[in-house]
Order: sequence, then structure tokens, then C-alpha cells
Amino acid sequence: MTKDRVNDQVLEENQVAGNGLLDRRLFLKKGLQFGAITTLATSTTLATAKSETPKTEINPADLPWMKTPGEPFSIYGMPSKHEDDVVRYPSPNQVVPGNGVSWTPLHKMEGTITPNGLHYERHHNGVPQIDPKKHRLLIHGLVKNDLTFSIDDLLRYPMQSKICFIECGGNSNAGWNKLPAQAEAGYFNGMVSCSEWTGVPLSVLLDEVGLRKKAKWIIAEGADAFAMQMSIPIEKALDDAFLALYQNGERIRPENGYPLRLIVPGWEGVLNVKWLRRLKVTNRPVMARNETSKYTELQASGKARIFTFPIEAKSLITSPSAHMLLKEKGLYQITGLAWSGRGKVSKVEVSADAGKTWAEAELQEPVLDRSLTRFRLPWHWNGKQSVIMSRVTDETGYEQPERNKLVKERGRKGFFHYNAITRWQVDTDGFVSHVYEKDETQKDNSDISIDSDWD
Amino acid sequence: MTKDRVNDQVLEENQVAGNGLLDRRLFLKKGLQFGAITTLATSTTLATAKSETPKTEINPADLPWMKTPGEPFSIYGMPSKHEDDVVRYPSPNQVVPGNGVSWTPLHKMEGTITPNGLHYERHHNGVPQIDPKKHRLLIHGLVKNDLTFSIDDLLRYPMQSKICFIECGGNSNAGWNKLPAQAEAGYFNGMVSCSEWTGVPLSVLLDEVGLRKKAKWIIAEGADAFAMQMSIPIEKALDDAFLALYQNGERIRPENGYPLRLIVPGWEGVLNVKWLRRLKVTNRPVMARNETSKYTELQASGKARIFTFPIEAKSLITSPSAHMLLKEKGLYQITGLAWSGRGKVSKVEVSADAGKTWAEAELQEPVLDRSLTRFRLPWHWNGKQSVIMSRVTDETGYEQPERNKLVKERGRKGFFHYNAITRWQVDTDGFVSHVYEKDETQKDNSDISIDSDWD
Repeated sequence: MTKDRVNDQVLEENQVAGNGLLDRRLFLKKGLQFGAITTLATSTTLATAKSETPKTEINPADLPWMKTPGEPFSIYGMPSKHEDDVVRYPSPNQVVPGNGVSWTPLHKMEGTITPNGLHYERHHNGVPQIDPKKHRLLIHGLVKNDLTFSIDDLLRYPMQSKICFIECGGNSNAGWNKLPAQAEAGYFNGMVSCSEWTGVPLSVLLDEVGLRKKAKWIIAEGADAFAMQMSIPIEKALDDAFLALYQNGERIRPENGYPLRLIVPGWEGVLNVKWLRRLKVTNRPVMARNETSKYTELQASGKARIFTFPIEAKSLITSPSAHMLLKEKGLYQITGLAWSGRGKVSKVEVSADAGKTWAEAELQEPVLDRSLTRFRLPWHWNGKQSVIMSRVTDETGYEQPERNKLVKERGRKGFFHYNAITRWQVDTDGFVSHVYEKDETQKDNSDISIDSDWD
Repeated sequence: MTKDRVNDQVLEENQVAGNGLLDRRLFLKKGLQFGAITTLATSTTLATAKSETPKTEINPADLPWMKTPGEPFSIYGMPSKHEDDVVRYPSPNQVVPGNGVSWTPLHKMEGTITPNGLHYERHHNGVPQIDPKKHRLLIHGLVKNDLTFSIDDLLRYPMQSKICFIECGGNSNAGWNKLPAQAEAGYFNGMVSCSEWTGVPLSVLLDEVGLRKKAKWIIAEGADAFAMQMSIPIEKALDDAFLALYQNGERIRPENGYPLRLIVPGWEGVLNVKWLRRLKVTNRPVMARNETSKYTELQASGKARIFTFPIEAKSLITSPSAHMLLKEKGLYQITGLAWSGRGKVSKVEVSADAGKTWAEAELQEPVLDRSLTRFRLPWHWNGKQSVIMSRVTDETGYEQPERNKLVKERGRKGFFHYNAITRWQVDTDGFVSHVYEKDETQKDNSDISIDSDWD
């Protein structure tokens, strides 16, 4: 059996859209001879000139790790040294020290949970090293009783947990550029991560301080040297916001807000204020720098969008994706992530023929509210140039737009909230690159310089 | 407002079981004056002699981390240095080098996901350092085509993800001892952890090799120096077993099976063979050491239980738990974990009066099949000696037994599959310790020596 022997009839019978997209339930069917489609493994009984893998069982005596005892127990584990390329990609601002981002390597990951070491970072003046014993949260302003909470106080309250994504409003903003960014998928879209956050419902603490009638907004402030301030409508604060102490089972790490982070599910990352030290209840927003001159969007009309809180639905194929190399034609998994700040993902469609035909992808269960949702579809690549793309629809009925449509609606100076469909082109040599729609007619050819804008 | 001012009437109205157990929906109710029950925070407007927390907002100039820029970006994050006591607790076998366990610190964690650095370890001859490029999986035996898979081959197959627990069959075995173990909750019950595992369904690969008619068992073998072998019935292999490559989004770490681990959801940890190198399809079990002289249970009758695959339903209060100190009477969260190898958790009941009365705890949503399930209940501790305990019922209707019942059924030589209710006693000084039922009448007073048995 060689790796390129494929049963064309079985392939044909299971194709659900153009250019080799296969039934998402294909690998759930029992009794099908998968070998007819896959044949990725190497037969150990038939000699093949092509094979480089051993044709019989490897003798344990030939494996160094089976000949001697392994490494001892460790109090805190780390990834294998063979995975030392699976890291965040820091992109510090060259002009403003302590400012910038680091990207989650989405293209090297699977499933939906982001391990804590790889959650993306966005700081405005570095990561403060806070002593939790000295940290306090003050709630004051339009309340009946000002209250101060220590971390030990907060740890005694009944908690809630929620698996949800956090995405920076500026994620994927290279998409506004004239030419397609050629970074790996995660290093251009990886300012989104997903964790199980655990903490105290904000509504409980607001009930405890007692809101006054004029209370309309809450100003959240961080304990970093930037003293980040953000305004949040009181309705959201009372609905599902919470004060997280834990991320994926352990206490939040310093770069993600240790010891306390405000979580506002589905809303822009910047609102999920890290190192939270103060909540001031007010009757109007504070109009801080990051809700006026930044995190607002200049439109083609000359007016700017402001307080664009929810993250629009978005999806992205993470594999195959930019800079990957498909070594041979045959079976591949097309997989990626979809999410919406307005609720659950309803469906993800995939095309392998540049949008001519679409097939519905399998969604990893359970599909959770405001969480990253993994989608997967088997694909038989025939070795020809192909453009693959994904499109999400969320439970409100909103459908992810093509780039031309998004640019037509919003212009190209917006910088934030880029959520268009991403197209990956697989060339005949198997190399994958990022492309735009071909018939695009942009008048404004200027590029946004991303680095200088992350301040 | 002082911390011990509590509205007795509000407390009384919301009590749902004896000794201060409060309605699990208490903190979900809108409009209730939580301050009447909680008052954990310190008022900033009323001076109180007791308070050690600041009475007004802290001046940022007094916080060192707000005066200077923080730490730079990092490619892979780590927990705060202030959390350096949240670690696995290694318990290496003193006689057999490279053998033993390390425990997950459940008592210092929240939510349901175990971060990868804290997943428990169980090794028989250390952690092999495997080069993934040289690793192969062989599937042979009663099959039509022997096949060998490289890791790159496996990475091309359509994958599935499942959040599920893995528990060692020997977890909590100090429970068989005559006297209650006084280790922290995680260091006596923490050979259970929960991750999102992602990989290739075993059924797909078994279809590809083609099972012969006499195929009844699969012998899974690890690539460690111990060459662990375990027998798994073919029905389970075809049902929901899968070959995991990823754990919580990133590739599995060395101590948990890098680069390939067999996952058999809900079954004993030892069957989830790490460093998987071979699957031999046979017509009978291999009767290896770890399914005959170990991981079997001597009964009172003199007969032994063998092939006790599924993990029985179990629950445990992780906070308050052994060695914790409640500093004052008042509101606390009672929280813990429940799980079942036979499906979903249906309910968890909590008692604060040594089992006289019970109240149903809130379960963290979504409750997932064969996963750790977090439960929570608010409790007002009145400062008197109290025994708190939890009891799970799973979707099969099975109810977690009291210790006396379990010992009566199974004797005390079983060593494995201890899943009795755990009782924590809170003394008047707030110190928490582990106790057994008082009217216990054990004839056999000999203790099991745990360390010497972990080989």
C-alpha cells in the first residue's frame, strides 16, 4: 500500500462540496474502509520503495528512551523541548516602552482551550508584579457604601466559572492593509484566546455596595503603571461581568491580570481590565484615552465609531494556513476556530474552491456561549492550486462578511474590529499563503503601520 | 460596618439545610441585599477598630507596581512567584527508582480544567524523553494490514476533542487506612485531573487496519523503559477511545505521554497508556503485571477483583478542606469536585451537620460526560464544631457510599477504587481536619503502607 493510492469512487461518493471537501461525518461512520480514502500510514507487510518508516516493529533496544529510566517527577510541568517553537510571538512597540502585544500561536494548536502560558498579552506599560496581600479592590462613586475588598475577602465569596474567549479589538488589523499579511495565522489573528475563568459575579458586589439611582456606568481601573481606565455600562456589569481570580484552574498569571481581572464576556479585550484595583460607579463614561483617541474607529464619512463593545462573529482556518507546506496530495484535516461576542456559533461553512461552493463543518461539542468553537472538515487535496476559506454564522443570524464587503462598509482607517473571511491559497507545490479576493478595487492604497499604532 | 454584623433574619430565610447551608441560588438572586449576609468587605467610610485594610482609596504613589513600568512580554508565561506553593506534590517510590506518583493540588484550585503543569503524574520508570520524529505507532495482530504511523501521519487525520478526567485507580487509597489521612485534600485525592484532550478516534485507525473476526482485546504498549502494557476490550476501543496528541490546546507534555497517549474516557488512569508505541489486536488479555498482581483488588472473601475498568462516582469538598484555617465565623463558599466514569454527574448534595441534613449544591455548567464537575454552595459558619461532606449521584443513579458501607462491601485490602464520602471537621478554632464516621467498628486495624505499594 502506498500513500497515494486512493479509491476515487469512495472519494467521489463522500464529496460534499467542490474541490475535495468531504462529509464532516465521514470519520464517524462505522464500517467504512477508511483506508480507501486515507492511506496515510505505512504498511508493515508490503515493502514500498517510498517509505522511510520502519516496516516492522521497532526493537525497544533501538530506542534510547526505552533502555534507561526516564526523568524524575516535577512539581510544575513544561512542554517538551521538541515543541519550543510553540510560543507567543511578542511584538513590542518600538516607540513606547512596555507597550505592545504578544500573539497566541493558533496555527500550532488544537481544541479550544488556550493553555495559560500561551494566552495572548496586550499591555500598555508592562506587567506589574503585584503582591496579592497588599492588593485591594475599591468600589465607590454612586453607591450607598464604599467598600474595599482584599483578595482574601474575595476568595470567600461564592464563585462562578465561564469558559469564554477574550479578543483584542485590534486583532487581525493587518487585514485592513492593501496587501495580504503573510504572517502565520496566529501571528496575525492570535490576539484571541479562550480560558475557563472563575471568580465572583460583579452583580453580587454591586448589590453589596448598593447602587444609587443615577448609576449608569462603571469605570474600571487597573493597578499597572499605565493605570488603565475603561467605561462599562451598568447593564453589562449587572448582567454577566465577573471578577476573575482563576484561569484554567489556577490563579491568573501576572501577564493576564494577577491577582484580579474584570471579565466582560464577548466584549473587546481592553474592557477586561487586568490588575483591577478600582470600580467607580458614575453617571457617564470617563472618556479615557483608550475609549476616545484609541479603540474607536474613523469611518469613511469622517465620523468615528465609539464604544463598539461586542466582538463581531469571526472564523479562521488555522490549518492548513499561511507558511504551512502540504508535502503531498491526499487527505488533510481543514480545521479552525470560530467565535462571536453575541452568543453561540450556529454554523461554520468551508469552501475549497474560493467561495464557489460551501460545505458545513463539524463543530466540536459542546458549543459554548462566547467561547472559541473548533470546526473541522476532511479534505482531499488533489495537488492543484486551491483557495480555502471559512465563514461563520452566529445565533443572532449574523454572517461573517467577505473582506470587500467589510471595507466597503467601514473604509480602511478603522484599525479595530476586523472580522472578514480569510482566504488561504494552497499552491501546486503545497505552500500556503494569504490572498485577498481577486477583483478587489481599492482606491486608497496606503498601508496602516501597525507597530506605531499600538500605543 | 464590621465583618461580624450579619442579618440573622436574612440568614434564617435562606437556610436550606442544617448548620447554615444556604440556598445555592442565593447569589444569583437580583435585588437581595447581600451585605446583610456577607459583609466581608471593609467599609471605607465608617472607621472600624478591627479593620486592617485602608479606609480610603490607596494612592497609586504608594504602590510600587504603579510607579514604574512592569515586566516585558514573554514567549511562554508562568504563574506568579506569590503562587509558588501551588505545585504538584511528588511522592516517589523509595524502593523502585523512577516509580511513584505526583499529586494535583486540588485544594488550591478552582473551576474544572487542570492546567497542564499541574496534571497529576504516575510513572513506572520515569518520564521518557521521546524524539517525535523517531516515534512510531504500530498497529498489528489480528488485523488485515499491519500499519505504522508517524506523528506527522497522525496529525493529518480528522480529530476529535473531549474534556474528560483521568483518575488513577489507586487515588485516595489512604482512605482504606484505619486512621483518617491528614494530608491536604489534593495530596490525598489529587490523582485525578481534567483536560481537553484532542486526537484521532481509535475506531478510524482500527477500520484502516481492518479487524479480523477473532479480535476481542487490544494490548496497548508504552515507549517508556517500563514498556507498560495494558489490555482493553475491543468494544471500548471502537466506542470512544482516541489517540491524543494535544492537551488543553498544546501538544501533550512529556510526563503525560508526549507525543501520543491513549485516552479511554472514564476508565482507570493506568489504561490511558502514555508514550503509546504499539497496539496489538488479540483474542485475549495479555495478563501483564499491572492487570494481575497490581490494579486488582483482594476482597474480604479472598478472591480478587480484576479488570475493574470504570471509575466509580466520587465527590470531594476541596474548600474548606484539611489543614485550612477559617479565621472567623461568617460566610464561606463550600466547593469541590464530582465525577463519574459512567457518564454525567446528576447531583451533588452537601451536609454541614455530619450527614443529618443535606442540601443540593449548584453545579457549574455545562456538566460534561466523564468530566470533573465543580459544585458550590454558600455556607454561614457559626463558629461551632461542624462536619462538612459531599455526596454525588451520577446519571446511572449510583450514589457515592459512606466509608463504612464501602469497607463492609469490599474489605480493607483492596488498595484501589476508593470512592467513599470524605468528612472534613471544622473545629471551633477554625482548623479543618479529616475524620471518619464515629460509630465505625473495624476489626482489622492494620494499615496499608502506601509508599511501598506504588511499584
